[in-house]
Amino acid sequence: MVKPSIPKGTRDFGPAVVRKRNYILQTIRNTFELFGFQPLETPAMENLTTLNGKYGEEGDKLIFKILDNGDILGRAQQAKDSRELGNLLCEKALKYDLTIPFARYVVMNQNELTFPFKRYQIQPVWRGDRPARGRYREFYQCDADVVGSSSLINEIELLKIYDTVFTKLGLQGFALRVNNRKILGGLAELVKRPDLLTDITISIDKLDKIGIEGVRKELTDRGLNEAEVAIVEDFISIDGTNDEKLERLKEVLKDSPTGLKGIEELTFVLNNELTTYSSHPVIDLTLARGLNYYTGIIIEARAPEVVKIGSIGGGGRYDDLTGLFGLPGLSGVGISFGVDRIYDVLEEMQLFPATAQQSTKVIFLYTGDQHIKTAYQHIIALREKGVAAELFHENAKMDKQMKYANKREIPFVAIIGDSEAQEGMVSIKNMVTGKQEKVTAAAITDFPFNAQ
Amino acid sequence: MVKPSIPKGTRDFGPAVVRKRNYILQTIRNTFELFGFQPLETPAMENLTTLNGKYGEEGDKLIFKILDNGDILGRAQQAKDSRELGNLLCEKALKYDLTIPFARYVVMNQNELTFPFKRYQIQPVWRGDRPARGRYREFYQCDADVVGSSSLINEIELLKIYDTVFTKLGLQGFALRVNNRKILGGLAELVKRPDLLTDITISIDKLDKIGIEGVRKELTDRGLNEAEVAIVEDFISIDGTNDEKLERLKEVLKDSPTGLKGIEELTFVLNNELTTYSSHPVIDLTLARGLNYYTGIIIEARAPEVVKIGSIGGGGRYDDLTGLFGLPGLSGVGISFGVDRIYDVLEEMQLFPATAQQSTKVIFLYTGDQHIKTAYQHIIALREKGVAAELFHENAKMDKQMKYANKREIPFVAIIGDSEAQEGMVSIKNMVTGKQEKVTAAAITDFPFNAQ
Repeated sequence: MVKPSIPKGTRDFGPAVVRKRNYILQTIRNTFELFGFQPLETPAMENLTTLNGKYGEEGDKLIFKILDNGDILGRAQQAKDSRELGNLLCEKALKYDLTIPFARYVVMNQNELTFPFKRYQIQPVWRGDRPARGRYREFYQCDADVVGSSSLINEIELLKIYDTVFTKLGLQGFALRVNNRKILGGLAELVKRPDLLTDITISIDKLDKIGIEGVRKELTDRGLNEAEVAIVEDFISIDGTNDEKLERLKEVLKDSPTGLKGIEELTFVLNNELTTYSSHPVIDLTLARGLNYYTGIIIEARAPEVVKIGSIGGGGRYDDLTGLFGLPGLSGVGISFGVDRIYDVLEEMQLFPATAQQSTKVIFLYTGDQHIKTAYQHIIALREKGVAAELFHENAKMDKQMKYANKREIPFVAIIGDSEAQEGMVSIKNMVTGKQEKVTAAAITDFPFNAQ
Repeated sequence: MVKPSIPKGTRDFGPAVVRKRNYILQTIRNTFELFGFQPLETPAMENLTTLNGKYGEEGDKLIFKILDNGDILGRAQQAKDSRELGNLLCEKALKYDLTIPFARYVVMNQNELTFPFKRYQIQPVWRGDRPARGRYREFYQCDADVVGSSSLINEIELLKIYDTVFTKLGLQGFALRVNNRKILGGLAELVKRPDLLTDITISIDKLDKIGIEGVRKELTDRGLNEAEVAIVEDFISIDGTNDEKLERLKEVLKDSPTGLKGIEELTFVLNNELTTYSSHPVIDLTLARGLNYYTGIIIEARAPEVVKIGSIGGGGRYDDLTGLFGLPGLSGVGISFGVDRIYDVLEEMQLFPATAQQSTKVIFLYTGDQHIKTAYQHIIALREKGVAAELFHENAKMDKQMKYANKREIPFVAIIGDSEAQEGMVSIKNMVTGKQEKVTAAAITDFPFNAQ
């Protein structure tokens, strides 16, 4: 017999991990709902034609294809290479992200949906990346998007969602960074190299990692001359408060209508008048995040500096996503939470509340079959009051029962032995403090099991 | 451009459906937790070797295999038939049920788990069945199992879970049926044809559908003589209350130790002393449900007769499931909820509560940008109190805003026009009753939006 295992890059989530993950997901979900976003779930499988060509050449290779059932041998013989073989044998594939299925859904349901459509989606996606620390082949994405509205109020709402979720999770020290694609466009105009917009932004996006020297070198390698590099360097060294940065940008980009539009948008979004944040978003002129996709605001959420984890979410405004499927002209803006990274942050900062890690509050132990009925009636009454309660599954020695309760880390045990039964009492032991007390049978349902 | 579509047999779940499905799943999940069951999640993909050979020849054909990435053309050329081709090109496959992955998980984690291990699992599975009404290629399973305990208290707990969930869902008229594999074994002994146990039970399991005449014919076709058929017919016509049936069975099966053991087990499980049910389980001697799998109790949950939907769940005790992966001797018992069918029952009986169908309670409308700030502050305060609230996304004519609120079926709109702003009031309109009232800005957060 082969020792059982699971595919590389996939994970089982045991009870303790599921509970902690659910604590994160539930916090996010509740916040999405409070903000009026609506849930969507799409199938794990999409038609291969829906996915092919949407993620660039490298991305396409990482799509997991599903073999057609039935007689496929003949088809296989026609293939000239492995890639063609995949396309000949597979009509379906596992979804690679939530964005393309969302666009596909919106196009298919455009006549029934009310726009702007604000949806959230929390589902696994699959990518054939080489597995590595923190990189999995099956992982959850957690997205909120608004399509069909170009109002900047949506940007404010999405920033506020980040702020609300991270505050609820107790993530002190998180940061929100914003930029605008139009401002980066203005920079490219300023350098008079709009053709090099992507090269410039890819380079400056690395400032954190490679420092100013590194950026200079990369810009030169990518074809900028000394004067052009100097303009970029001036631009990314713009400093100060948001207001100071915006003021300075207005001067620098005064001849770029695109740049000025970007400044105007950021000014509205960062408006201190409309709302406050636990952690007010900060302008970061080097922020790009897969620039080709975004057309307006670019957002990044970062973990507190102490944990060295970096980005825990990102998003931005994009135009014409649904155009891929024949519905042009819908503007959208969205954000995404990096659930695995947020999990690591909470773990490292020890921010998971105790209540996220237990379920059963009390287990009833007993010294003989004759006490089962009494115990079971208490259990049923407790469950009716919302207290998760269990009966030890069989008559056994008390120390075996205790050992089980201990291993399961159940916070309370209730004991019905002969003496308790005679007195009409139940002994309750707090397994954390070790304190034991007797309460009357009638008082059991009022005992504060859920307070622990 | 190709019109976008989704694979046959898969479904998108839009907001209204997700909410209603979550209402069902949350009711089940809460009940599992109240009973001390612990959550498990396994990957969508399993190694093909884990799944192959576990579901019979027909089942194996329905497993969705995932094409390996990389250079596979050479491998394809070695295949002699389509089946071999699949095994040559695919290391992984989508899970076909939750049971085999659960067994695989238990074996892999046997040293860390505390037994008995009570787990629940609510995840999608995939099967290449021909799609039909009510039959999908991706659907949720929803299972609770206990492994590592042969105590019959587990059986009682699982029946009680069904009873609790269906009662919470308001499913008046649901029924729980039970039988025991050992009693069916006793019947086969009685007929003196233990070799035909499967044939006999497959035939009598169809009594509901084909009637007594049909069962007689099928038994004869399967090789029973007239006298043997008569014994089976006597057996399945045993009638009366559970107690009467058990008494009669004791006489009929008095010479079968196996049969008597089955009777003893059912007697314990149906013990009226220990607990009561909204719908007490009823003995159904024709119940078999994939008999080869079960070794003790067999359970079926049925929808109320009015909806003609039949089974909405089932389960039973099995021995040695983990033996498939090298860990013999663990007894298990489990149940499963048929989520899609339960959805259909609730829909048909109109049992979904209104609260399961809405999220946003109030949307703020306004007559000009100057009121946005006021509206937004109310919204933030309401969200802090747990009221899902939205701001209309842009300055627009009031009738456009109203139309949007209407289409979204949001139960309340709050209006801030110039007169409201001057008076420091907000107009609140109940969109269901049409009633409109003005409340002071300070009283907004106390308005009973969530009561609707």
